[in-house]
Amino acid sequence: MKIAIINGPNLNLLGVREPGIYGSQGFDTYFEQLRTIFPNITFHYYQSNVEGELINELQRVGFDFDGIVLNPGGYTHTSVAIGDAIAAITTPVIETHISNVHAREEFRRLSHVSAKCKGTICGLGLKGYELAVRWLSEAK
Amino acid sequence: MKIAIINGPNLNLLGVREPGIYGSQGFDTYFEQLRTIFPNITFHYYQSNVEGELINELQRVGFDFDGIVLNPGGYTHTSVAIGDAIAAITTPVIETHISNVHAREEFRRLSHVSAKCKGTICGLGLKGYELAVRWLSEAK
Amino acid sequence: MKIAIINGPNLNLLGVREPGIYGSQGFDTYFEQLRTIFPNITFHYYQSNVEGELINELQRVGFDFDGIVLNPGGYTHTSVAIGDAIAAITTPVIETHISNVHAREEFRRLSHVSAKCKGTICGLGLKGYELAVRWLSEAK
Amino acid sequence: MKIAIINGPNLNLLGVREPGIYGSQGFDTYFEQLRTIFPNITFHYYQSNVEGELINELQRVGFDFDGIVLNPGGYTHTSVAIGDAIAAITTPVIETHISNVHAREEFRRLSHVSAKCKGTICGLGLKGYELAVRWLSEAK
Amino acid sequence: MKIAIINGPNLNLLGVREPGIYGSQGFDTYFEQLRTIFPNITFHYYQSNVEGELINELQRVGFDFDGIVLNPGGYTHTSVAIGDAIAAITTPVIETHISNVHAREEFRRLSHVSAKCKGTICGLGLKGYELAVRWLSEAK
Amino acid sequence: MKIAIINGPNLNLLGVREPGIYGSQGFDTYFEQLRTIFPNITFHYYQSNVEGELINELQRVGFDFDGIVLNPGGYTHTSVAIGDAIAAITTPVIETHISNVHAREEFRRLSHVSAKCKGTICGLGLKGYELAVRWLSEAK
Amino acid sequence: MKIAIINGPNLNLLGVREPGIYGSQGFDTYFEQLRTIFPNITFHYYQSNVEGELINELQRVGFDFDGIVLNPGGYTHTSVAIGDAIAAITTPVIETHISNVHAREEFRRLSHVSAKCKGTICGLGLKGYELAVRWLSEAK
Amino acid sequence: MKIAIINGPNLNLLGVREPGIYGSQGFDTYFEQLRTIFPNITFHYYQSNVEGELINELQRVGFDFDGIVLNPGGYTHTSVAIGDAIAAITTPVIETHISNVHAREEFRRLSHVSAKCKGTICGLGLKGYELAVRWLSEAK
Amino acid sequence: MKIAIINGPNLNLLGVREPGIYGSQGFDTYFEQLRTIFPNITFHYYQSNVEGELINELQRVGFDFDGIVLNPGGYTHTSVAIGDAIAAITTPVIETHISNVHAREEFRRLSHVSAKCKGTICGLGLKGYELAVRWLSEAK
Amino acid sequence: MKIAIINGPNLNLLGVREPGIYGSQGFDTYFEQLRTIFPNITFHYYQSNVEGELINELQRVGFDFDGIVLNPGGYTHTSVAIGDAIAAITTPVIETHISNVHAREEFRRLSHVSAKCKGTICGLGLKGYELAVRWLSEAK
Amino acid sequence: MKIAIINGPNLNLLGVREPGIYGSQGFDTYFEQLRTIFPNITFHYYQSNVEGELINELQRVGFDFDGIVLNPGGYTHTSVAIGDAIAAITTPVIETHISNVHAREEFRRLSHVSAKCKGTICGLGLKGYELAVRWLSEAK
Amino acid sequence: MKIAIINGPNLNLLGVREPGIYGSQGFDTYFEQLRTIFPNITFHYYQSNVEGELINELQRVGFDFDGIVLNPGGYTHTSVAIGDAIAAITTPVIETHISNVHAREEFRRLSHVSAKCKGTICGLGLKGYELAVRWLSEAK
Repeated sequence: MKIAIINGPNLNLLGVREPGIYGSQGFDTYFEQLRTIFPNITFHYYQSNVEGELINELQRVGFDFDGIVLNPGGYTHTSVAIGDAIAAITTPVIETHISNVHAREEFRRLSHVSAKCKGTICGLGLKGYELAVRWLSEAK
Repeated sequence: MKIAIINGPNLNLLGVREPGIYGSQGFDTYFEQLRTIFPNITFHYYQSNVEGELINELQRVGFDFDGIVLNPGGYTHTSVAIGDAIAAITTPVIETHISNVHAREEFRRLSHVSAKCKGTICGLGLKGYELAVRWLSEAK
Repeated sequence: MKIAIINGPNLNLLGVREPGIYGSQGFDTYFEQLRTIFPNITFHYYQSNVEGELINELQRVGFDFDGIVLNPGGYTHTSVAIGDAIAAITTPVIETHISNVHAREEFRRLSHVSAKCKGTICGLGLKGYELAVRWLSEAK
Repeated sequence: MKIAIINGPNLNLLGVREPGIYGSQGFDTYFEQLRTIFPNITFHYYQSNVEGELINELQRVGFDFDGIVLNPGGYTHTSVAIGDAIAAITTPVIETHISNVHAREEFRRLSHVSAKCKGTICGLGLKGYELAVRWLSEAK
Repeated sequence: MKIAIINGPNLNLLGVREPGIYGSQGFDTYFEQLRTIFPNITFHYYQSNVEGELINELQRVGFDFDGIVLNPGGYTHTSVAIGDAIAAITTPVIETHISNVHAREEFRRLSHVSAKCKGTICGLGLKGYELAVRWLSEAK
Repeated sequence: MKIAIINGPNLNLLGVREPGIYGSQGFDTYFEQLRTIFPNITFHYYQSNVEGELINELQRVGFDFDGIVLNPGGYTHTSVAIGDAIAAITTPVIETHISNVHAREEFRRLSHVSAKCKGTICGLGLKGYELAVRWLSEAK
Repeated sequence: MKIAIINGPNLNLLGVREPGIYGSQGFDTYFEQLRTIFPNITFHYYQSNVEGELINELQRVGFDFDGIVLNPGGYTHTSVAIGDAIAAITTPVIETHISNVHAREEFRRLSHVSAKCKGTICGLGLKGYELAVRWLSEAK
Repeated sequence: MKIAIINGPNLNLLGVREPGIYGSQGFDTYFEQLRTIFPNITFHYYQSNVEGELINELQRVGFDFDGIVLNPGGYTHTSVAIGDAIAAITTPVIETHISNVHAREEFRRLSHVSAKCKGTICGLGLKGYELAVRWLSEAK
Repeated sequence: MKIAIINGPNLNLLGVREPGIYGSQGFDTYFEQLRTIFPNITFHYYQSNVEGELINELQRVGFDFDGIVLNPGGYTHTSVAIGDAIAAITTPVIETHISNVHAREEFRRLSHVSAKCKGTICGLGLKGYELAVRWLSEAK
Repeated sequence: MKIAIINGPNLNLLGVREPGIYGSQGFDTYFEQLRTIFPNITFHYYQSNVEGELINELQRVGFDFDGIVLNPGGYTHTSVAIGDAIAAITTPVIETHISNVHAREEFRRLSHVSAKCKGTICGLGLKGYELAVRWLSEAK
Repeated sequence: MKIAIINGPNLNLLGVREPGIYGSQGFDTYFEQLRTIFPNITFHYYQSNVEGELINELQRVGFDFDGIVLNPGGYTHTSVAIGDAIAAITTPVIETHISNVHAREEFRRLSHVSAKCKGTICGLGLKGYELAVRWLSEAK
Repeated sequence: MKIAIINGPNLNLLGVREPGIYGSQGFDTYFEQLRTIFPNITFHYYQSNVEGELINELQRVGFDFDGIVLNPGGYTHTSVAIGDAIAAITTPVIETHISNVHAREEFRRLSHVSAKCKGTICGLGLKGYELAVRWLSEAK
């Protein structure tokens, strides 16, 4: 089973960036934990700050992977093009957010991505990635 | 460990109601599965179509339970009072929706509840309840 | 033939409440007239001020009755959950309003219920109930 | 008793136009049925695609007829002038729509006409005209 | 000097229509007074309930008349096409309203016509026509 | 003199719920103080988390009591039906809020209740109930 | 007959200020012409840049003058208080604007003043003051 | 092959009307060019300033012509009824605008017509008609 | 104890101005009553129609007085600067309105002042001033 | 003559992506047809999923090419920067969309690009590119 | 070289007012520093809480001074009249705000003044005044 | 002292692009002047048309540089992700715009970036960069 984890802008700063909101653990450390939890899954990890490169990656893994966990970061609220990419591919995508976007600024309530995804997990910290993987591997 | 599952309006019709959107499994059957998955957790289940009774229940379990999984159904989009109840209690609440509310009518995009919860899981079917319980039992 | 008439909040005050808008006849008297007009129809009457009890009733009669005449009163403009209940059941529902809601406050122009009903009759006084029954018994 | 039935734009295509929404019966055939149902009423029928001609007709019949059944079609949502005409005349007007406009595009939810009419019947098919006539002849 | 007075929908009912708002004098009587006040002006009067016929008339008089007094009635708030016609012709147009549209329904506050006219006179009753003519004949 | 005090959702948690916003005094204790301040008034106290039960209570006391002090809690911002109930009864109602709703979330600025009440007191803590009673007993 | 002309902010710069919009004639010169046109009217002229002083003046002349011509300048679009003052006094007020406010920035389309005045004249240059005076002296 | 070209309000003034926006060529001259470019197509040309007559014409040609090129002029932004007519007929319709409506007033950005057409060509001058015809004759 | 009462625009006309809304008692008479009710409080009274002078006064009394009762009149809905002044001073301010602003024009529902005050009393007539003083002297 | 064709995000998936909306032909095949139709035009083709690379390309070809056909895909609705780039260059740009964006989600109705282009062709499938090239080569 | 510094409402409380937002330095002290930094510039300082007096001052210095630094305080967001005054004068005006208005309440994001100024400096504390003066003296 | 200057999309065309708005000086020439003005500051210059590359650069310099001057160009109005990047780093950022964005299209009034920056300078031409550097070097 192959699952891709795709992180959007500023998620490379996890652990450094606003720890009050995003926690103090970097994604690399967490990713190792995730591999341990799901030893039978082949993970592919990708992070970019560039909207179009996230689309490139969605297209690259979007036809033969078994699932995608996508945290579109700030592009969640502004990117029609990422939403279009999700609609264009066939692999199911789960949108994940570390923080509870509904409890922050008003503009974070709009998502151009959610409607095109299978579902959304938000506010549950890094654990949200694990739950998304669990769904993709058990319930898809 | 004690976890309450609280279902809002029309969720008593699960399996009967619009199966294209909500699936054909009733909640009772699913609840049995859930108990099996988490044998060490004491579950409390409650469903009501009455907004205020959901508040009563949130208040009843909201101070000594370890977690609440709440699917507020149609009250998600209209109930300030349920949001207030969640803010008033101390047990963490996870909002869950079976269908992807973002891919349906425009008015389902507004939630008065999400901002007061720990997080939200939506669009992942009944499996979303399991993921919520997992978070409450492992990550809270 | 079985038809349910379900009245929402404050309609128990009919005849007493703002007679300039709602007229001076109580619903009980009118209901007797209605029975006389349609002697072959078995009527079931229910009124509640509680949104969730209206949903309970819609669910109770919504699968084997031949029709429902629903006046959701003030819940018309705020209740997603009643709209969801109507979509969940199989009996056809006709929404009825005694007064012309379009000629009153701006907020009465929004209905969360109309889109889920078969149709709407409004502004035609208590006679609107008779017309709704007529449609259910003759045209459904 | 004299009752005018006034149909707005595209209703001359009834039976031909989008049968999934408007049904497959032409208005002429229906009109004959209506005459049979109400043998003691003198009906006057008028249809035009021109907004201003509908106003002309409303003015022509609007002072000495006993009632008007008006289906303003697409002008419902855009015509202040038809609303003004209804307010200007003395004959009571009932607005009728064959389809349930609330269950269609968002822009069909706005009516410039409803507030000036006695009441509205919508979503009940051609039968709606009969119910409107019944109200005008029995309850006005 | 040639001045056209063009009245839009329902203004043919002046004196009959909602006298509390529009007064009880018909336009014909007033028009005679107007001729007497300005004996040296050749007046042309036109009224129609049809939006497009008002455009026809604006085009017909809009290149060689010295001025146009236009009361677009209900089309004021909905007609881009009349606004376009005014922009297309060369004769200056003054928009006139008998009642104070700002003190009535909210939707009467929007005008698609005003921005294309020389100016607007509203709320000053039939006397507003005289003031408009005065401006056209003295100040243009 | 008979005055009813009606408290809406979550006000049964007063003293426990978000003390930073609502203070640390329970309503029971305060109610005793209130009785002491107005020894000649017969008080009736009612609290419910159910919107429709608040309507039931408003109807029950709304015709022969001398005044009602109503804190609709979270229903303030969403309940057309409570507003309708206040309009339907004859006893004057004063809306009271413990916290300053204008200084909190944007959605708390909308009230469906205020326009139907005699007046509103907000932000003045539990003391606001006393002021409301004072008005009802001295100035009504 | 006593008529007050009240000019709001920046109208003291007339002739100097943006001549492309407001023309090159100062108000003083124009005022002399106005006196000549209406020799039997006693005029009172007042200009202030201070919103509250305009209110003071409206109150001072608003009970025994025969009419007020008011150009509220930029306060037109923002002053509820001037609107309230006009509603509070008994002398009829005509709102006048030199430029066509509808053909300028979007925010100039909102007036808090128009609904409280007798009527409005706009876009007709300084001549608009004369027309307003004519109405007050002949038609009031 | 039969193609209808239908022009809406004020397009009869082409060449005369605002040449900075619409160019200086009349439609008649252009129509001759068009005939020359497509010698094998039978063209039918219709222009009216009346919304309802445009609907009449759409209905007349809308079932047996091979294509319609429609420039609804100012009705583009306000006519639900023309949109309904396009949905009611079976001949494919291409909406054409001479000027770039997106670069003009804000209200020209809303079209009630576009969603019902096959496609839209705008801003390409009179040449847009030729391109529309080419599509209808080559690609339909 | 020193308490300032500050009245905004048009409140100097109380008793004269729209008595249906504001009552027929002038503020002077009422002020005498108020002094009698609270013999131990030193009152300071100020009224101005000028927004900035109200700010001056708020600043003057805002650091050493024990409380301020402010009725900002029409500036309530438009003055960010008065709201800023209240936030800048240290004396607690209670906003008071004689009429129920929520039951009047839509624009009176917005307050730039409420969020900066301690609380608001509205719709309770002149008695509202007394209640505000009572709070300041007893509960502050 | 040199014409550039620039395709935005997800258009590299043409033929694969949502064929119900975008058809089943890949752009490569179509591009060969296009070259055949216009043998005398030198075409330059560019596709990228990255907004900024589209800007780079627009700048590269935007000063010496004779025309640009741009399909901005999902960036149409969100990119001010692409609109700025079009305004910054001198080569005329025609915006092209394969599907009728007006008949899809509401958010596709907003374009930040259209106002800066010469014109727009939408809904006419791949044929739209040919029509755009024809305009650039014949009518520019 | 003559430069005027004009401060709007509540800026006289600088150093006292909300020091967390505005700092603890009074403007007088800062003004002395400013004089020292620019010894060759003649400064004129003016502060008022009255909107109209700020307009008076803008008009007084607005034709022969070399520059104006204006901090309109709370009037920034509500004053069309100050914007009009800036457009009416010829001296260039730079709008300055001590705090970052974009990071505060939503209503502070709207400025009626910015569009009429040369430019805006905000969020840079008192130093912003110096930067504005530098621009006026070096770059105008 | 190390200061980074980061320019967003289309700013590489400065001097070429719309000189009426942006002036005719290229950024290179200006950058040399800037170095001369601040000989003791080490400048780092970066320009990209790619949103994500701007984020990369902000992250690269955002923890050890002393300041960043950022002109986000067209991304100002659409990029939540750049705003997030600014919030994530520790170096203070000043937003700079060459033109007065408030005096241009409506959509340029919204900034997703300003609230996260220290402050904003706009409308002051290239000189704005110098003022921003001055603040960073003198006042930070």
